[in-house]
Amino acid sequence: MEKKRIVIALGNTSLGKSFPEQKTAVKKAAAAIADLVEKKHQVVITHGNGPQVGMIHKAMTEFGHLHSDYTVAPMSICSAMSQGYIGYDLQNAIRTELLNRGIFKPVSTIITQVQVDTFDKAFSNPTKKIGRYMTEEEANEEKKKGHHIIFEEGRGYRRIISAPKPIKIYEIDAIQTLTDAGQIVIAGGGGGIPVLEQGTVLKGASAVIEKDYTSMKLADLLHADTLLFLTGVEKACLNFGQQDEKPLDLVTFTQAQGYMAEGHFSPNNMYPKVDAAATFAASGEGRESIITSLDRALDSMKGRTGTRFIA
Amino acid sequence: MEKKRIVIALGNTSLGKSFPEQKTAVKKAAAAIADLVEKKHQVVITHGNGPQVGMIHKAMTEFGHLHSDYTVAPMSICSAMSQGYIGYDLQNAIRTELLNRGIFKPVSTIITQVQVDTFDKAFSNPTKKIGRYMTEEEANEEKKKGHHIIFEEGRGYRRIISAPKPIKIYEIDAIQTLTDAGQIVIAGGGGGIPVLEQGTVLKGASAVIEKDYTSMKLADLLHADTLLFLTGVEKACLNFGQQDEKPLDLVTFTQAQGYMAEGHFSPNNMYPKVDAAATFAASGEGRESIITSLDRALDSMKGRTGTRFIA
Repeated sequence: MEKKRIVIALGNTSLGKSFPEQKTAVKKAAAAIADLVEKKHQVVITHGNGPQVGMIHKAMTEFGHLHSDYTVAPMSICSAMSQGYIGYDLQNAIRTELLNRGIFKPVSTIITQVQVDTFDKAFSNPTKKIGRYMTEEEANEEKKKGHHIIFEEGRGYRRIISAPKPIKIYEIDAIQTLTDAGQIVIAGGGGGIPVLEQGTVLKGASAVIEKDYTSMKLADLLHADTLLFLTGVEKACLNFGQQDEKPLDLVTFTQAQGYMAEGHFSPNNMYPKVDAAATFAASGEGRESIITSLDRALDSMKGRTGTRFIA
Repeated sequence: MEKKRIVIALGNTSLGKSFPEQKTAVKKAAAAIADLVEKKHQVVITHGNGPQVGMIHKAMTEFGHLHSDYTVAPMSICSAMSQGYIGYDLQNAIRTELLNRGIFKPVSTIITQVQVDTFDKAFSNPTKKIGRYMTEEEANEEKKKGHHIIFEEGRGYRRIISAPKPIKIYEIDAIQTLTDAGQIVIAGGGGGIPVLEQGTVLKGASAVIEKDYTSMKLADLLHADTLLFLTGVEKACLNFGQQDEKPLDLVTFTQAQGYMAEGHFSPNNMYPKVDAAATFAASGEGRESIITSLDRALDSMKGRTGTRFIA
């Protein structure tokens, strides 16, 4: 098998929703990553942070309101905290898994800022769910604070915030240098800390960037061969969850555009993955994307499973 | 002036105690750092995290107790969060300050784990103050949770935790690679996330590592020329705050040992700096340490002020 440079995007299912859950969940992610490292692939890892940043933001907000000598942490700071927290658990799990296989390879986490555009239409149309499900009472409390809330039938209320597109990754030089040195890098966690560029100043934005698009941007800038989405399903499907569900094996850019237009993919989960996967695969010679589950990562790289996107 | 590799240890006064305070404080730190970068020195930055990790730990603990569907974050996770948070503000401020001077140089933050020893005697004798001052009532609440509390005359109560010595910096390869590439790295924040090594597993420890010793370790491993402590005073002093206060200009290793034994330096502030500074200066040919204030950083490198430690 050819040695590839792979940008791996870990979904929220790879991380769990609480401190103990994450500690356990990252072990499975680490095994999938170690499988690829063992085959001499070069990996760069991005990950989601929905539940984590939601929890941190809620905790810091309640704390700021309870104690008059503290102020509330803006979303961008909570995002930075979540990168530190998730990166710590993830780099540890990967380090351990590799050492258990007799491999020593430095693993580190880079706090990553990503530029978003003030005029991104996402700012007037928040869509990204963060935090856990809430009761009606809790939801009303959140609404009073000016937060956007949606209701999901049978599951409860959730806070939603804006999810603008990533434009620029500020720490790309550091990520590139470490990757070129053969080290494993965790970067762009939670899609990156969203910032607006105002002259020479970067100003934190109240948003969460869709990590699937940040992964695509990272794969592009690092000249990766493969953009690998590790998620809850082995393959992306047409008519997902219906009787005529059809798993996809090979998808061209044009086919992907058609499927997306037909509304086959859920807007907050599979859609951005398919969109990013198809766009990356079509963006340059020899590039491909794969969507598969955590435990089929290596198999998918061998061409045995997963949904593969080509130009 | 000779171009040097400098490990800069920023004290808590460089960071402030709240979100808005830190945003302002880091600008001053960034100016001091930019002064050195402008003179072509290579810099690696470490910083304290006392007030920040105390605040985060308090917030996450209260949150975990208030909401039964969340658990309390261990100290190690809070430490990782504080590295993300402080690194984010600091790398931004440095980036902006450099750009304002027409210098483009990548700046990034590495989440850093530092090994401590289970048998370190610090675990049975907590000394490191974290968080803000508390009322007697708050202090009693903390005591009930099993936390160690001390009382400072005229100022109030504070939580104290163990401060074991750093043994190993796990992310040293990444820090070294980026530094060698001429980039600016922020690492070992708050003294690093304290971990115990159990086989191939790193287990978070309930402690805070004295950042002055982590800075020394970092300077040693990176073969730095200078270990520079930027703190609240221009020079370390004998009989500090007394009528016969005597600022120190040049201190040999032997002199430092004598002064420390005589009890000239406050145990939680100047003592570890003097100890680390003297030890680093004596650890190899051409090495020196300096203790000075933030606004005298460049002057101290030119030999014009500060307390200079030599072998």
